[in-house]
Amino acid sequence: MAAPDPATARAAVYEGPGRLTVRDFPLPELGPGDMLVAVELAGVDGSEVHMFRGEIAAIDAIAPVVFGDEILGRVQAIGAQAAARRGLKPGDRVVVEARWPCADCRPCREGNYYLCDHRWEKGGYGWMRADAPPHLWGGYATHVFVPADALVYPVDADLPAETALVACSVLANSIYWTRTAGIGLGDPVAVIGPGPQGIGAALVAQLRGADVVLAGLPRDAARLALARDLGVTRTVVLDGGDGAAQLRAALGQDPAVVIETAGAQPAKDLALAAVRTGGRVVNCSVPPGPLSVDFTAVLLKQVTMQSPLAHPHTVPEALRLGQVLRARGQDVGRMVSHVFALDQAEEAVRTAGYETPESPVKVAIRP
Amino acid sequence: MAAPDPATARAAVYEGPGRLTVRDFPLPELGPGDMLVAVELAGVDGSEVHMFRGEIAAIDAIAPVVFGDEILGRVQAIGAQAAARRGLKPGDRVVVEARWPCADCRPCREGNYYLCDHRWEKGGYGWMRADAPPHLWGGYATHVFVPADALVYPVDADLPAETALVACSVLANSIYWTRTAGIGLGDPVAVIGPGPQGIGAALVAQLRGADVVLAGLPRDAARLALARDLGVTRTVVLDGGDGAAQLRAALGQDPAVVIETAGAQPAKDLALAAVRTGGRVVNCSVPPGPLSVDFTAVLLKQVTMQSPLAHPHTVPEALRLGQVLRARGQDVGRMVSHVFALDQAEEAVRTAGYETPESPVKVAIRP
Amino acid sequence: MAAPDPATARAAVYEGPGRLTVRDFPLPELGPGDMLVAVELAGVDGSEVHMFRGEIAAIDAIAPVVFGDEILGRVQAIGAQAAARRGLKPGDRVVVEARWPCADCRPCREGNYYLCDHRWEKGGYGWMRADAPPHLWGGYATHVFVPADALVYPVDADLPAETALVACSVLANSIYWTRTAGIGLGDPVAVIGPGPQGIGAALVAQLRGADVVLAGLPRDAARLALARDLGVTRTVVLDGGDGAAQLRAALGQDPAVVIETAGAQPAKDLALAAVRTGGRVVNCSVPPGPLSVDFTAVLLKQVTMQSPLAHPHTVPEALRLGQVLRARGQDVGRMVSHVFALDQAEEAVRTAGYETPESPVKVAIRP
Amino acid sequence: MAAPDPATARAAVYEGPGRLTVRDFPLPELGPGDMLVAVELAGVDGSEVHMFRGEIAAIDAIAPVVFGDEILGRVQAIGAQAAARRGLKPGDRVVVEARWPCADCRPCREGNYYLCDHRWEKGGYGWMRADAPPHLWGGYATHVFVPADALVYPVDADLPAETALVACSVLANSIYWTRTAGIGLGDPVAVIGPGPQGIGAALVAQLRGADVVLAGLPRDAARLALARDLGVTRTVVLDGGDGAAQLRAALGQDPAVVIETAGAQPAKDLALAAVRTGGRVVNCSVPPGPLSVDFTAVLLKQVTMQSPLAHPHTVPEALRLGQVLRARGQDVGRMVSHVFALDQAEEAVRTAGYETPESPVKVAIRP
Repeated sequence: MAAPDPATARAAVYEGPGRLTVRDFPLPELGPGDMLVAVELAGVDGSEVHMFRGEIAAIDAIAPVVFGDEILGRVQAIGAQAAARRGLKPGDRVVVEARWPCADCRPCREGNYYLCDHRWEKGGYGWMRADAPPHLWGGYATHVFVPADALVYPVDADLPAETALVACSVLANSIYWTRTAGIGLGDPVAVIGPGPQGIGAALVAQLRGADVVLAGLPRDAARLALARDLGVTRTVVLDGGDGAAQLRAALGQDPAVVIETAGAQPAKDLALAAVRTGGRVVNCSVPPGPLSVDFTAVLLKQVTMQSPLAHPHTVPEALRLGQVLRARGQDVGRMVSHVFALDQAEEAVRTAGYETPESPVKVAIRP
Repeated sequence: MAAPDPATARAAVYEGPGRLTVRDFPLPELGPGDMLVAVELAGVDGSEVHMFRGEIAAIDAIAPVVFGDEILGRVQAIGAQAAARRGLKPGDRVVVEARWPCADCRPCREGNYYLCDHRWEKGGYGWMRADAPPHLWGGYATHVFVPADALVYPVDADLPAETALVACSVLANSIYWTRTAGIGLGDPVAVIGPGPQGIGAALVAQLRGADVVLAGLPRDAARLALARDLGVTRTVVLDGGDGAAQLRAALGQDPAVVIETAGAQPAKDLALAAVRTGGRVVNCSVPPGPLSVDFTAVLLKQVTMQSPLAHPHTVPEALRLGQVLRARGQDVGRMVSHVFALDQAEEAVRTAGYETPESPVKVAIRP
Repeated sequence: MAAPDPATARAAVYEGPGRLTVRDFPLPELGPGDMLVAVELAGVDGSEVHMFRGEIAAIDAIAPVVFGDEILGRVQAIGAQAAARRGLKPGDRVVVEARWPCADCRPCREGNYYLCDHRWEKGGYGWMRADAPPHLWGGYATHVFVPADALVYPVDADLPAETALVACSVLANSIYWTRTAGIGLGDPVAVIGPGPQGIGAALVAQLRGADVVLAGLPRDAARLALARDLGVTRTVVLDGGDGAAQLRAALGQDPAVVIETAGAQPAKDLALAAVRTGGRVVNCSVPPGPLSVDFTAVLLKQVTMQSPLAHPHTVPEALRLGQVLRARGQDVGRMVSHVFALDQAEEAVRTAGYETPESPVKVAIRP
Repeated sequence: MAAPDPATARAAVYEGPGRLTVRDFPLPELGPGDMLVAVELAGVDGSEVHMFRGEIAAIDAIAPVVFGDEILGRVQAIGAQAAARRGLKPGDRVVVEARWPCADCRPCREGNYYLCDHRWEKGGYGWMRADAPPHLWGGYATHVFVPADALVYPVDADLPAETALVACSVLANSIYWTRTAGIGLGDPVAVIGPGPQGIGAALVAQLRGADVVLAGLPRDAARLALARDLGVTRTVVLDGGDGAAQLRAALGQDPAVVIETAGAQPAKDLALAAVRTGGRVVNCSVPPGPLSVDFTAVLLKQVTMQSPLAHPHTVPEALRLGQVLRARGQDVGRMVSHVFALDQAEEAVRTAGYETPESPVKVAIRP
């Protein structure tokens, strides 16, 4: 982390399709409940790739926006009330979560603030106007502003930054998704797509005692090798033939749950073809457009399709799992394949979007 | 019920696409565990419509087949073991269920014999070769053969045949589907499609304490009127505008569950558009081909799509509900709009398939 | 509601065992998020009976305390922020809930603020020191102070006060308890104890489609008659013989769920003896001391014992049910058998505790 | 396994309290669906200890009875139908389960044959009259008779007998109990009582990703050491002080689930005192008499008490887990501390009942 001018922050601001510029902002005034966090490492994920390409009209409507909703940092300044309530002090290491509950709506009351009724107006990190104070609402920055309501979690000082970053995003998702799917001891589970999320889901399903296979395409060889290296016990390369038969052969039976993280029509078809009668398909991908589903076939197998979003209330457990896995020699931080400086934010997003010659797994920005 | 030749049965046999002929068969020899049931009323449903049109290759592969998997009748003869185990005697009124459990497979062990691993080979009523003894494996017949393993339920002598028939098929489905959807007290529920199954699902959801609206098209006016007459408290005619807004207006909030019984793309689109965040869409229809789904929209609302099949273990409760509703003046037997003689079986199927000028709700055959 | 001195409130204050005195307090200063509610009707329940007798050491430790945690009233004054956020204005009718969530603990995050980790220090209505401003933390008073965090629900102007009061307490409990027990359509359910809570549980179980019997002792004849009058379809007087056999006879089968609201050893014994294998016993009573349980018998029947507390997030649905039932001629407000003025608060508590010749069902105070 | 007289079996027969005699029986005639299994190893558990002492009147009513309901063996002879349906042949290694489903009752239909409505009349291994053919209904014997309906599972030839025996009984219970308790990834779990079942429950909870502590008394030091050796990560010796505080200290938080396998009042008290608000206490013990429960305290914490019985449908998964754990160096077969010959069956039972100077963990008989 570069030592910043004590009174100035820098941030990579999305100005509109294809334009990501680094700007200076004054550090915000902090109220008694507020906090300022100096960013240590910020994640780049698919949402920014889509936004950068101009595919999300809602973000263009509120641009300029500081990108970044996966945020690890250290408390730089903190109001008295925030310090008391959060039990934090300057220098403490924290994860700042992308969204937080409102006080009023049904989804928040039920514990799922990623579905907040007011989410589109309310926003969150990486989804706020940057043209008014406190400006610093994104992780692609030297600092982020943290209001009283935001969710913040302490991070062990000895946890590598990459590990913490992957835990608080990828593993946090995996915990929620595998719990939603009801994955338990001995369940046969197939995960399609060996990106960070597929690898994470496979690892967390294994921690639940499931019998897991992770499937990828021939071009995913390096990712599948990384997955095995991180402890995924079984991987399979889909050879273009009968993918369901390949998954059945790997598991010794049809999967009770298929977690689909690839988002393409063949992946969805495979998921529905492979899952056993009465089983569940977990849709974790953001396909580029509508997909086709044979609902008669789905009915004859009585398949349930679930689409769990994000990771309400799972970050603390995810950080714990990051430590547990690391202690076993399975450091999920190794998924971070590329780290860029803040000035290279645009290249970071392009790399994450496969627009460069690189083959990234997880991309991050170190401001 | 016509008094049959004591030694001969008659049955409507599907010979192949478009051909349904009435044939005589010898009454079968009964083993000690077997039973012969004289059919009182048999239901015609969509499966026979599709099969008759030649759309189901698997049935053509085993034809000739006696159609009919919704069966109400009276015990005509019963083996000694069957009498002892079932507590039945000649003259007792019964429903014979379409399928029954095997002893070995996982779905049957878990209580869901409609998903039996051996279902395609094993068959059931309306899905068995008729060219070998005991021949009588379908409800479109004067008699059906009932082996030791088949599921049979007693029916009150005073329950009208039409009520019992609708209960053991339509209500039995509704019980399972609404339970799968977790519909409970006060839940806002929308049902799309006012066919027998839509009306049944609306009534059973109401019995669970849900707040229900049943939606149809302008051409469904008579069905919606019947639904209201049977006790569905709220119906809405979709006017081609914003259907989700119409459902919201009717319920005072977005539905937590949408039960989709229509099977067309606009119905599926409406279901996914209308359901609230975190809600469930229950797919109960058999669309003619694949449908399109915007999985990104599904993910952003975290919608779960369920596809419950048939009605494992719910017939006894369905028969009870038929009585309960009837006692309240809500006789579901009134859904039976057309009854045909056995010789008119082909016309019955064509009527159910809307190939005649009639506007049927539920069609039945009285042999 | 008596017209109070515009600047003074009156409240019945628990000073210590056996002492309940009516005192004047200044009306509190309201901050922008606060509200003042003029009490229309307040409920007396078992908790105050126990506290008044000096059986709850924790309340003696913080006395003086204004009693009363079931509160119906009208907004008398409201801060600007509260008005905006709550959508309320002076004159609006509301229920004020006894407890509310904190922002930090696990149970509150999971939606169950009655189990808040900080509940004993934090308190709530009827459980706060009265010797410091704003003093007015209880329903046995002309006014209650309502801070920004408290939970408040609008009440229809045409709902009788007694109906609203019983709904927001008794029915609200019943909704949570029957949901916790997983009571659904067709389930055989026995409720032991025809007090307000037993009657409420029976009614709400019926609304869920359950098949219910409500059991009482010979001395409960009037309560059982009231229950039938309110729509409970089946009641039984336990005659001192085989109670389990009586419940079985009433239901035609063993109950899947027994809701035990009586709190005596014979009631608990009956609940465990009557419930079917694999069933659930719901403990909703506060027995005077430890009870004896034969865990070997419980294990051989695999009985689950649940103890749901209070009514997190169910008041709005309860108020709706109060209206629904009333529209069917089942006005739960009829459970309010005795209403006292504020000056008679002590007599109200003694009446609720059966220390007078009266046979109360539900007791209330109209300040 | 001793080579038996080809036409004669030997079995240890319970004749009445304190009397266990070894008798010869003719080998039974096998029907086409039957099977004869030569016993390799049979488990001794608490049920036989209680029966031997004359504490179970129901068993005295049907004595003589061949004891033994945990049975590992090899197919010695098999009828043609049984061979076809089971896919077994002489020499194959199998576990024979104690109970099996009937075709008719609700609990069996729901998949829980240990709760079969007919269980007391129907019996099972170790619970059948020995005075009529086929006599051989217990594992304390050279051979057991296996009818068509009994549940039999194949066992890998390379799995040590002790491992298979502990898996099919102890681990099979643990799978069902921990699943009933809903134990999942990251859940803090306390297990009270380091007997075979406590150790097994701790290991299986860990396989589900739970954070587990196993608690015992000072006299349990050797068992706790064995538990750690088998892979239980954390154990605590209850020192007679505040046990709940000890469990909290070990876990870093209160347990969400307490599995109580000890069966004494102090253990039950500790379970209820230690479990967190909203948590579950799993009663897996058979206490000698009724225990006392403070239901008010249980209600204020909203504790659910569960009592899962035996292990319906979990033996195959248990055998798999036995292999999985063994491959990790955690061989649960090491819990078998004492093995006796068939002629020593009485000493085996007395040892399991702590009537000898031995300190057994798990006792077995090798006929």
